Amino acid sequence: MIIDCHGHYTTAPKSLEAFRQRQIDGLKDPKLAPAKDSLVIKDDEIRDSIEGAQLRIQRERGTDLTIFSPRAGGMAHHVGNAATSALWTDICNELIHRVCALFPKNFVGVCQLPQSPGVRPDNCIAELERCVKEYGFIGCNLNPDPSGGYWTDPPLTDKWWYPLYEKMVELEVPAMVHVSSSCNPAFHFTGAHYINGDTTAFMQFITSSLFKDFPTLKFIIPHGGGAVPYHWGRYRGLAQDLGKPPLAEHVMKNVYFDTCVYHQAGIDLLTRVIPADNILFASEIVGAVKGIDPETGHYYDDTRRYLDAVTTLSRDEKKKIFEDNVYKVYPRFRKRG
Amino acid sequence: MIIDCHGHYTTAPKSLEAFRQRQIDGLKDPKLAPAKDSLVIKDDEIRDSIEGAQLRIQRERGTDLTIFSPRAGGMAHHVGNAATSALWTDICNELIHRVCALFPKNFVGVCQLPQSPGVRPDNCIAELERCVKEYGFIGCNLNPDPSGGYWTDPPLTDKWWYPLYEKMVELEVPAMVHVSSSCNPAFHFTGAHYINGDTTAFMQFITSSLFKDFPTLKFIIPHGGGAVPYHWGRYRGLAQDLGKPPLAEHVMKNVYFDTCVYHQAGIDLLTRVIPADNILFASEIVGAVKGIDPETGHYYDDTRRYLDAVTTLSRDEKKKIFEDNVYKVYPRFRKRG
Repeated sequence: MIIDCHGHYTTAPKSLEAFRQRQIDGLKDPKLAPAKDSLVIKDDEIRDSIEGAQLRIQRERGTDLTIFSPRAGGMAHHVGNAATSALWTDICNELIHRVCALFPKNFVGVCQLPQSPGVRPDNCIAELERCVKEYGFIGCNLNPDPSGGYWTDPPLTDKWWYPLYEKMVELEVPAMVHVSSSCNPAFHFTGAHYINGDTTAFMQFITSSLFKDFPTLKFIIPHGGGAVPYHWGRYRGLAQDLGKPPLAEHVMKNVYFDTCVYHQAGIDLLTRVIPADNILFASEIVGAVKGIDPETGHYYDDTRRYLDAVTTLSRDEKKKIFEDNVYKVYPRFRKRG
Repeated sequence: MIIDCHGHYTTAPKSLEAFRQRQIDGLKDPKLAPAKDSLVIKDDEIRDSIEGAQLRIQRERGTDLTIFSPRAGGMAHHVGNAATSALWTDICNELIHRVCALFPKNFVGVCQLPQSPGVRPDNCIAELERCVKEYGFIGCNLNPDPSGGYWTDPPLTDKWWYPLYEKMVELEVPAMVHVSSSCNPAFHFTGAHYINGDTTAFMQFITSSLFKDFPTLKFIIPHGGGAVPYHWGRYRGLAQDLGKPPLAEHVMKNVYFDTCVYHQAGIDLLTRVIPADNILFASEIVGAVKGIDPETGHYYDDTRRYLDAVTTLSRDEKKKIFEDNVYKVYPRFRKRG
């Protein structure tokens, strides 16, 4: 089986976006604020939105199942306040649940959290628990920067986040560290903010003792781990200069990188420096880069091709990346209904 | 000849740091503010600070000359105001000039700029001109985030920066895009802020038409270009999705990456995806990572070893990286006294 651990519902029906716009309008004029039940999306609309996109791509590329979450750029935790984020998150997660219920062989859910800048992440615990227990979701997306590019909340290693981590450990769910859109003009969202978020989180982990406090806590760093594998010598060296244990021991029992790296040389590097035990297959479809690479004639985000072409991994190592590691990182995957 | 395009005066005499501390104390209590001439550093102190460090390392590693600038982390443009930054920059640049005058075969200067958050970069023009014309410097370091991790100034592609670019073009000097220390607890400075700054700048260039406005403007993106070469497919694909020309045409006539990547796999990737015409040798000594890699028995930052070991570059291509590209990127290098 080939499991893609990183897909977002980027193709949701337009009425979702229209609801969000009404919600944003309602921040200025409360009379315009929409009721939750004003959004009506029929099952057929969901089927249509998935069948021609994610499901078709799964078939075309020979992958079997996608670990699926709301559109990352759409989370936009910086919009409004905690109540804004709570309603929006509720709606987005419910839609993911409906996708997974309609296509149970093809999708397993991961939730967005109702984060809000400056608000303690304790407020995310109930939604996480609901999504795991009622919807059967197996993980969450955690935004290390709810401000959307100004980085005003504490690092992921601060005790600020610990109540949420306690619940994650209790529920046996990992988090993918994933920023959302950027409202800072310095950062293009998929070209800078996403990659910076990944790099930043990894360095936060290095400087901390987070995994002493939470030995079973697990994070997936998407987009191939940001800049980290390319600068693996820098990170090994910085940990050493800081008097930390080797990375294998210090963070790599808890941190995993996905394969959303959109060219052969990048995937070759990733699989050369990062152990197969720490890599999860992913392509982030339908996602950040939509075009066909003129150098190869294939979609940039067809990451399976790059992995298939890697010559330095054994069959067992590839199986770990494509499938086995998912059982380890997402214990609820096996237990799902 | 082997030219290292990226070295900082990280070993300056302690009295420099003490002066800076007095300057910072003076921000709270103006009576404590030091006069410029209260800092006295003798030539022998400078010799001592260089001979056992950068000069010894040049000899040991078989490099000939370093393009040398003030300590990047020390620029700290977020401290105080424009006047604070002006005095500090004046002092730091003068010290670089003295190093270059004492060791003219080994060092050529690049200046720090008196940037300050929210202050138009027009205020940097006089210092740039002074350093180039009086000191014979051949480039500058440009901080894309004078706030030190909050990214509150406009992107490098905004017209905000154009007066400085006009002067750079007139003087024929490039800028190395280099952030300074981070005062944002989210970002470790050498492990996150530096790399993020590099990645961010490159994506700013992609989304803009900056090099249509300044066809001869040149930037060096240090630390191997941040995350960019590892995600080269993503950047090619994003440019394509945005309707921009291919990167070779759109930005790579103006943007160069250095080789501050501290392991063999990273340098192999860099030289595989980025043309030799766009790579400049550098090691950032005495710099970010100080230790010896237990996997190789050599210093992490001994980047010459990695380049020597690359098997896919021709002799001519290596010569471009080690020497020839410097003449192209820094036209004043050849003209220096």
